[in-house]
Amino acid sequence: MSKPKVFEKPVGVKDYLPHAVSKLRTIERNVLDCMGRWGYRQILTPTIEYYDTVGVASATSDHKLFKLLNNRGTALVLRSDMTAPIARVVSSLLKDEAFPIRLSYHSNVFRTIEEEAGREAEFFQTGVELVGDASAEADAEVVSLAIASLQAAGVAQFKFAMGHVGFLNGLFEEVLHGRSEDQETLKFCLLSRDYVGYRERIREWGLDAAEQQKLEGILRLRGGKEICEQALQLSGDEQTRASIEHLLEVWEALEAYGVSQHVLLDLTMIGDFSYYTGMTFEGYALELGSPVCSGGRYDNLLQQFGRPAPATGFALKTTRILDVVGDEDQEQLAVMTLNYTSQNRAQIFQEARALREAGNCVVTRYVEEDV
Amino acid sequence: MSKPKVFEKPVGVKDYLPHAVSKLRTIERNVLDCMGRWGYRQILTPTIEYYDTVGVASATSDHKLFKLLNNRGTALVLRSDMTAPIARVVSSLLKDEAFPIRLSYHSNVFRTIEEEAGREAEFFQTGVELVGDASAEADAEVVSLAIASLQAAGVAQFKFAMGHVGFLNGLFEEVLHGRSEDQETLKFCLLSRDYVGYRERIREWGLDAAEQQKLEGILRLRGGKEICEQALQLSGDEQTRASIEHLLEVWEALEAYGVSQHVLLDLTMIGDFSYYTGMTFEGYALELGSPVCSGGRYDNLLQQFGRPAPATGFALKTTRILDVVGDEDQEQLAVMTLNYTSQNRAQIFQEARALREAGNCVVTRYVEEDV
Repeated sequence: MSKPKVFEKPVGVKDYLPHAVSKLRTIERNVLDCMGRWGYRQILTPTIEYYDTVGVASATSDHKLFKLLNNRGTALVLRSDMTAPIARVVSSLLKDEAFPIRLSYHSNVFRTIEEEAGREAEFFQTGVELVGDASAEADAEVVSLAIASLQAAGVAQFKFAMGHVGFLNGLFEEVLHGRSEDQETLKFCLLSRDYVGYRERIREWGLDAAEQQKLEGILRLRGGKEICEQALQLSGDEQTRASIEHLLEVWEALEAYGVSQHVLLDLTMIGDFSYYTGMTFEGYALELGSPVCSGGRYDNLLQQFGRPAPATGFALKTTRILDVVGDEDQEQLAVMTLNYTSQNRAQIFQEARALREAGNCVVTRYVEEDV
Repeated sequence: MSKPKVFEKPVGVKDYLPHAVSKLRTIERNVLDCMGRWGYRQILTPTIEYYDTVGVASATSDHKLFKLLNNRGTALVLRSDMTAPIARVVSSLLKDEAFPIRLSYHSNVFRTIEEEAGREAEFFQTGVELVGDASAEADAEVVSLAIASLQAAGVAQFKFAMGHVGFLNGLFEEVLHGRSEDQETLKFCLLSRDYVGYRERIREWGLDAAEQQKLEGILRLRGGKEICEQALQLSGDEQTRASIEHLLEVWEALEAYGVSQHVLLDLTMIGDFSYYTGMTFEGYALELGSPVCSGGRYDNLLQQFGRPAPATGFALKTTRILDVVGDEDQEQLAVMTLNYTSQNRAQIFQEARALREAGNCVVTRYVEEDV
C-alpha cells in the first residue's frame, strides 16, 4: 500500500473553505432558530458510541457503519445518524422528563463508503425528534416543521412526498400471505424505483387477475388527497385501511397548517430505513434527484433503550442543501485594513478596537516607517 | 468482556443537554464573531485524517491519537487538534492564497484517554492560526485576540502567561552543552511544575556554582517586563538573548493593544507541544488549575505539508470554559403553549405561525373538545 501524499485527505471527506463555511453556518443558524421557535431544544451527543447499543439500534445497515475499537478492545462506531443517540439520551439522562419531548440537532454523521463517485463518508444533518406522541397531529407537526426548516434554509422550490409503511405491509400481506421473501423483492423494486421490474415479478408469479390488479394498482397511488379514496377501494386489509385513515388525518392537519400544497401522497414510497413503523416522508429540492430531507415515524426504537415510546422526526441533509441554495442571504463583512508603524501603533490599535466593537472586520498591518 | 448496557456511552465522551448546548452555542457564536472581526475566516476540515500525514504531524503524542483503519486497511486518525489539518489546507486548497492567511475554527477533537478521572476523549476547541508572518507583531496579535476571545466567551477573570521555548533551549544548551537527556529531564520537571525535583537534579550533577546559579535562576523568571532584564543578565547565549528580545517586542505591542496588564512573563513555561518553536502562552481562568487557552509559534509545521512558512496561533479549550462562565448572557426564550381542538385548529396554527415569525417560541397542543 502506498503512503498517502502529505496534502491528501481520506476518500469521502472534505474541507470547507471560508466561503462554504459561512454559507453552512447561515443555514445551520437559520434552521436551528426555526426549530427553536417550534419548541425544539438542541442537544449534542458524542461522535463515538458503542457498537452494541447505538450502532446496532441505528437505521444504518451494518456494513455502512464506521466501526473502530477502543484501547480495551470494545467495538465502537462513529455515529451514523442522531436518532439512535437521541433515543439513548431520552431513555437515560432525560428519563424523568415527561412526554412529549421535542429535541433538535445539527451534527456530522459518518458512513463507510464504497468507491462510488460523490458519496460522502462524513456529512451534516440538521433535524428534530418528537418523542412520546403517537398522534397524526404529531406527524403533521414534524412534516410542517420540515417544510418550514427547508424554507428557513433558503430552499425556494421543493416538494414533499408522504407515504405509510403500514399501507404496503398490509396490502402485500393481504395478497402475498406469508411470502415474506417475495414481499421483500417487491419492496426492493419500489425502493429502487424499478417499476418495470416490479410489474415483471408480479406477472411471473401467476397471481389471479384481482390480486395482480391490486399489486399493480399501487403504482398509480401518487397524487393528492383523492388517492386515499382509491387506496381504500384497493384493499380491505385492516392495517392498510388504518394506515390510510392515519394519512388522511395527517393531511387534514397539513391543510390546517396551510402547507398541503407542498405535499404529494406517494403510497409507493418505502422509507430507506427498516425501522420506520408508520408515516414516512421525503423532501426534494427542484433539480436535485436525491432527497434533501427524510423522516417518518419510528415507534419501536425507544423500547430498545428501555423507555418504550412512539416517536416521529426528520433530518435535513444539510450538506446537500449547501449546493442548492444561493449566496444571497450571506452576511459578508468587508475587510478594512489599517496600516501602522511603530510610531502610531497604540493609536491605530485603539481605532481598530473601536471599529471592531462597532461590528466591523479590521485587519491591522505593520509597515516600515518612511525614512 | 461484558456487553455495554443500552443506556451507556463510551468512557470519556458526553452528552450535552439543551441548557449546556445553549450555553456552548452562545460561547461559540460570540468567540467566532470576535475572531471574524479581527479578520479570521472560519474553516471546517474532516473529523477523519490520514495517520501518516496529519496524524504524524500533529502535536499530540502518538499514544494519545485515536487511530482506526478504513476498509482498505489504511491507518486513519480522528483529528486531535486543528493546527495540522489547517497546515494541510493552507498547503493544498489555499496554496495560491498569499500570506498572511488568517483562519479560525470551532471543532471537536479527540484523544484516547487513560482511565483518569475527568479526562475527556472528545472535546471542543475554538481557535485561530495566523500563517505566513514571523514577526513579533503577529505573536502579539494572536495573544491579544486570545484575550479578546476569552472576554467574548464571558470569562471575566483570567491571566495569561507568556514564555519562549528558545530561551530555555539556549540557556540549557549553554550550561549543559550536548547533554540532551539531562536537558529533557529539566524540561520535564518544568512541564510538570516539579520545581523541587528541578533543583534536586541540578544539585546532583555537581555543576560549578555559576552554572548551578544560572539554571536555578530560571525559576525566578516570572513577572513583568523587568524579568527580561534579569534574563539577559543570566545568559550570554545568542538564542537566549534573541528570544528575550523577541518577547520584549511582543510585550511592547501588547502594551500598545492595551492588554499587557493581563499578561505575565513566565520563562519557566514549556509548551505542552514539542512543535512550538518560539513564543508560547497559556490563559488561566480564576479558580481553575488547568489552562483554558494555549498557543504559540510553530515555524516548522507547514514545511511538513510542502509549503514552508512561519505560523502562530492558539486554541481556547471551549469545553472547560463552559464550566467557568455563568448563564447570565444566555438568551432563553419562554415557551408559549397554545392548545387547540379539531374545531379551531387552522386558526390556532395561524396564530402560532405569526407568533413564531415574530420570534417567539410556540408549542401547539391538541386537546379533546369539551362535550
